[in-house]
Amino acid sequence: MVVDSAFAVVNAVGLVAFALVGAMKGIRAGFDPFGVVVVGLVTAFGGGTTRDILVDRIPLSVQTASNLSYGLLGVVLAVGLALVISDPDRHPATQFADAAGLGAFAATGSIVATDAGLSAFGVVAIATINAVGGGALTDLLLDRSPFVLLEDIYAIPAVLGGMSYVAVTGLGLRGATVACVAVTVGTRLLAVSRGWDLPPMKELLA
Amino acid sequence: MVVDSAFAVVNAVGLVAFALVGAMKGIRAGFDPFGVVVVGLVTAFGGGTTRDILVDRIPLSVQTASNLSYGLLGVVLAVGLALVISDPDRHPATQFADAAGLGAFAATGSIVATDAGLSAFGVVAIATINAVGGGALTDLLLDRSPFVLLEDIYAIPAVLGGMSYVAVTGLGLRGATVACVAVTVGTRLLAVSRGWDLPPMKELLA
Amino acid sequence: MVVDSAFAVVNAVGLVAFALVGAMKGIRAGFDPFGVVVVGLVTAFGGGTTRDILVDRIPLSVQTASNLSYGLLGVVLAVGLALVISDPDRHPATQFADAAGLGAFAATGSIVATDAGLSAFGVVAIATINAVGGGALTDLLLDRSPFVLLEDIYAIPAVLGGMSYVAVTGLGLRGATVACVAVTVGTRLLAVSRGWDLPPMKELLA
Repeated sequence: MVVDSAFAVVNAVGLVAFALVGAMKGIRAGFDPFGVVVVGLVTAFGGGTTRDILVDRIPLSVQTASNLSYGLLGVVLAVGLALVISDPDRHPATQFADAAGLGAFAATGSIVATDAGLSAFGVVAIATINAVGGGALTDLLLDRSPFVLLEDIYAIPAVLGGMSYVAVTGLGLRGATVACVAVTVGTRLLAVSRGWDLPPMKELLA
Repeated sequence: MVVDSAFAVVNAVGLVAFALVGAMKGIRAGFDPFGVVVVGLVTAFGGGTTRDILVDRIPLSVQTASNLSYGLLGVVLAVGLALVISDPDRHPATQFADAAGLGAFAATGSIVATDAGLSAFGVVAIATINAVGGGALTDLLLDRSPFVLLEDIYAIPAVLGGMSYVAVTGLGLRGATVACVAVTVGTRLLAVSRGWDLPPMKELLA
Repeated sequence: MVVDSAFAVVNAVGLVAFALVGAMKGIRAGFDPFGVVVVGLVTAFGGGTTRDILVDRIPLSVQTASNLSYGLLGVVLAVGLALVISDPDRHPATQFADAAGLGAFAATGSIVATDAGLSAFGVVAIATINAVGGGALTDLLLDRSPFVLLEDIYAIPAVLGGMSYVAVTGLGLRGATVACVAVTVGTRLLAVSRGWDLPPMKELLA
């Protein structure tokens, strides 16, 4: 098991942020309170659980209850935010939380995959899956195509974050976790604020 | 591998019950005979396979053919029931089979997670995932939001069943499996018969 | 890890073929270039990753980058094909690639499951899951019921291929991989060309 203070901090941030984003989606979809909690927790824990399955260990999410409190905190924050903000699902606060969760989970994925002895490729792959997995699973539960396939610059920031982690670690420098979070969150927020977009492949082929 | 006679019995009951429920969904969805068998088997084996992946072992479902016969028995029962009953998908027999499967798999999940050395939290988490996982996977295959998110009191009985298992085991008493099944099936049937329901979160916030 | 030249060849063929088929689905669904790549790679790597999770090892897909090039080659072929062919999603070339991928992955599944020490039942189960898993996952991402449930004779060729592998190996003969591929591809192409079909269960019960 990873016992690393950087891991503990980014993991907590990611869980709160993604639980908030997921709970918002559940509220918008018209679920009852129980469903909102489930959607929030699936968004928060889906990516990390997939990561732990891929690196072949018992997921943290079923090993300890302590992480659960971070997920529930995110759900509570979402309910509070939904009370004071109209259209909270698209509010900048929600978009910022989503970018923060993406960066945090790209970092925890990089840390766990490095710890498991994977290659540079494997570290980037796990970072990306960890970052986008929870949201993709939530979209499947909500019976729609995962956001990551439709939103153009969503997985790419996580790929770049994982590569930053590998580069900083490979150069023997400190601060790989910070670099990963900064690159992921920075490119994601840039893409959102600039409205970066790619045309459908079909159009390019026509 | 768990070799426990209580496990063997509840596992067989759960497989027959959930295969019946799943096959009913497949018949209703208009699948051909092969699709009905697949949907029945996914419902029966989905939860336990997820459980075994989470506790990091090769799933029972791919280790031995003997369980397959229970799944096929459930599918045959569903076809028989569909011949003699109109609207079999909502018939009390189907709802009872669903509650029985929920209870049986909450119990097998509790047994396997305890066996794998998980904490009390992990046991309840695995019990719940084992109980609701097969049905949720089936709903994804049928291209709709999982029942567990829309039906209010469906996962909660499994949570209570897992907690009963932990409590009885923790007190050093016998009968944890029976307690888990009884609490899960009892609360689920109560919720169905009383029509217990929660309002959408959106309404509570408005 | 399996290091077997037959494995390497069929694995490469399967990855190229299924990435092509998946990318075609993504183009047809109107995704942007990034989405097309993701759908192609999920189709190519989904089955093998599920297989590796089930036999309880770190998936090849996250261990090495070398396989990625086969997946990307398949995506490039799909884009090229889409440029020169109208309605490429249903073109015989795509249907042949799909059958080839089905046969190749039934074979890699059989090899890995045999290597992991599973029973004859387990080998056939893993062969089938490996063969149909990537396509099923893709259909879930595209928000529709998996093809394997609606297309009647799709999983059955993989089941027959896995059984051929087990039979040839069990008789102590060589050529199990070739037999598996030949039986799977042959029965699948026969089913497609003859338009073999099963009526819905509902109709049979009416």
